[in-house]
Amino acid sequence: MLLPELKQRRDKIRVLMAQQGIDAALFTCNVNLIYTYGQVVSGYLYLPLNDPARLFIKRPNNIEGEHIRPIRKPEQLPDLLTEQGLPLPQRLMLEGDELSFNEYRRLAACFPSAEVLPCGSALVRQARSVKTKLEIELFRRSGLAHAKAYAQIPTVYRPGMTDRELSIEIERLMRLEGNLGIFRVFGQSMEIFMGSLLAGDNAAAPSPYDFALGGEGMDPALPGGANNTPLQEGQSLMVDLGGNFYGYMGDMSRVFSIGRLPQQAYDAHQLCLDIQDAIADMARPGVVCEDLYNKAIDMVTRADMADYFMGVGQKAKFIGHGIGLEINEAPVIAPRMKQELEPGMVFALEPKIVLPGVGPVGIENSWAVGAEGLEKLTICEESIIEL
Amino acid sequence: MLLPELKQRRDKIRVLMAQQGIDAALFTCNVNLIYTYGQVVSGYLYLPLNDPARLFIKRPNNIEGEHIRPIRKPEQLPDLLTEQGLPLPQRLMLEGDELSFNEYRRLAACFPSAEVLPCGSALVRQARSVKTKLEIELFRRSGLAHAKAYAQIPTVYRPGMTDRELSIEIERLMRLEGNLGIFRVFGQSMEIFMGSLLAGDNAAAPSPYDFALGGEGMDPALPGGANNTPLQEGQSLMVDLGGNFYGYMGDMSRVFSIGRLPQQAYDAHQLCLDIQDAIADMARPGVVCEDLYNKAIDMVTRADMADYFMGVGQKAKFIGHGIGLEINEAPVIAPRMKQELEPGMVFALEPKIVLPGVGPVGIENSWAVGAEGLEKLTICEESIIEL
Repeated sequence: MLLPELKQRRDKIRVLMAQQGIDAALFTCNVNLIYTYGQVVSGYLYLPLNDPARLFIKRPNNIEGEHIRPIRKPEQLPDLLTEQGLPLPQRLMLEGDELSFNEYRRLAACFPSAEVLPCGSALVRQARSVKTKLEIELFRRSGLAHAKAYAQIPTVYRPGMTDRELSIEIERLMRLEGNLGIFRVFGQSMEIFMGSLLAGDNAAAPSPYDFALGGEGMDPALPGGANNTPLQEGQSLMVDLGGNFYGYMGDMSRVFSIGRLPQQAYDAHQLCLDIQDAIADMARPGVVCEDLYNKAIDMVTRADMADYFMGVGQKAKFIGHGIGLEINEAPVIAPRMKQELEPGMVFALEPKIVLPGVGPVGIENSWAVGAEGLEKLTICEESIIEL
Repeated sequence: MLLPELKQRRDKIRVLMAQQGIDAALFTCNVNLIYTYGQVVSGYLYLPLNDPARLFIKRPNNIEGEHIRPIRKPEQLPDLLTEQGLPLPQRLMLEGDELSFNEYRRLAACFPSAEVLPCGSALVRQARSVKTKLEIELFRRSGLAHAKAYAQIPTVYRPGMTDRELSIEIERLMRLEGNLGIFRVFGQSMEIFMGSLLAGDNAAAPSPYDFALGGEGMDPALPGGANNTPLQEGQSLMVDLGGNFYGYMGDMSRVFSIGRLPQQAYDAHQLCLDIQDAIADMARPGVVCEDLYNKAIDMVTRADMADYFMGVGQKAKFIGHGIGLEINEAPVIAPRMKQELEPGMVFALEPKIVLPGVGPVGIENSWAVGAEGLEKLTICEESIIEL
């Protein structure tokens, strides 16, 4: 990755460090290395407030550069910094939400004279929540590839399939369009394979995971998503796979039907499209996230559909979420979220309704916040497509 | 999952807790919840040394039972324990290698009167390293499904494919045989999609990840595995996908060739098979892991192939690894590993050689340690199969 891009990202972090009187950061978790160095390595990116970043690398063994040094273990860090003429840090931040407790303590113990702060994850996530021009461009390209894969879904459906079988064919389409497959989530408790395909009443099955909808899944070791539901006339199904084509987790859901659905399903789907339109109209820099959420709740309440909005029984408590190197970044479009939208934020908006006896309807697109309003990044047919 | 199985697992942990004077454990990380409760939930499994385990659950909202209570936040734990007549813990262990630093501190702060120890991950991993009969049976079933998928590989190869395209078709075969897709690894630094397909010289490309072989990958955000190598006459390729069909990460590699390979490749492949045989003959309860590793090194050194064994340039420093709910469990077959094999351990053994200008050869199977020796869990043609 080009140095000006990396410098811009590092400087976004440095601004936040300066506000908190932090003179150095140490990053070793993969997503933060992608963000600050442009690729996954096994090693450490040391970011001083007032000096160029240093990379200390274990693997791979074929990376060299002016500010790059090999390292075997983190205990070498103080000597390696001193060798390069850098002062040892006084207030050092580490990735407190991502490093394990034991790893954190090991790294902190390398700097006994420093005050070590666990705010590194939160601060980088704040920096990452406002994307650079290049990051938004990567989201645009992801959206094109994602849409190209989804457009082929009708060609891989065959009558008699289960949800799982159809999901496998769509996963293949996504991979053929260049999806890297890996689905990165912040925190250890949220797990998913490439995304989910939810058909019929399985869309209402509660799961342990805090995604918009659940699903029973195929095994107690991964209780989310498709559950071998036979696809049948009169059912709706929602395809919601992650769009990780260049490291960035684009997000898009589309609804398909087996034959025709009851009219109620088309009405509910249209309500979700109307909510999407209303929120896209409202959203611009300075708008508060909870106001967007409340707008959606107003609309579903007026339409008497609140009981089915964002699941039944167990409901998601958000209608949108920031996306980036991970699927769950800031901002979150949810109740009591006072955060204001800023230019460069990218988020997924996913008003969804689950109709018992039919299945899921609704929409999800990825959006970038511009100075004047939103730009849709995932452009693809939005009506319910009959298979 | 049946309670006797769960009780057996919990009691294995309790034995280790008792040895360290620990009177309670709190588990909240997904793999440890699968192990101790039989499924992923969002919540906490509290394991007292001398009382039945308690589950405190956030999501899903449809699980009930005698020892199960709903919870919103961990700060409720002490009151909930007291309500159930349990004493508060005096020496409590948490998952110090898996919980983030900030999560760990939050949980520890819920028990201000306890001595809190971060050894929970290590201790459960020790318990998990010796599998129960049911776990070994799940590995057997995984091995059958894994082999069934691999046996179909020649049917999906088409001349002119890239490594990535062939990989996608094999991923699909694995999914159709029931692979859950998700690839669980201990630690945040190791990442992979479903596994790797390495063709030709890409098998020698160093990666940041500590898998047996690397590969360049498709994007700096995931620098491992296939890299769009066109599959060409005279190349070997190795398929090494994870076999997670029931939550357990079976592991198996097989080698294919495009047309015929130089004789050197068949000789090197046979050497790997001979190493596998020699180690399978040696391995039994009480044998020390490093002795198995050294046996392999002796054999490749005598055959003058040490420079190509386990990679060239950047080499893996192990030839085998325990498998279970995660791909990297104990024991590790590596230098200086004094651990002895025990009945019930399950590990992957993967002697591999990379030949410049040709590609990877060698073998990987999953094995269970029985009282008399090893049982092969992944039974499938082992010679180089010409595509």
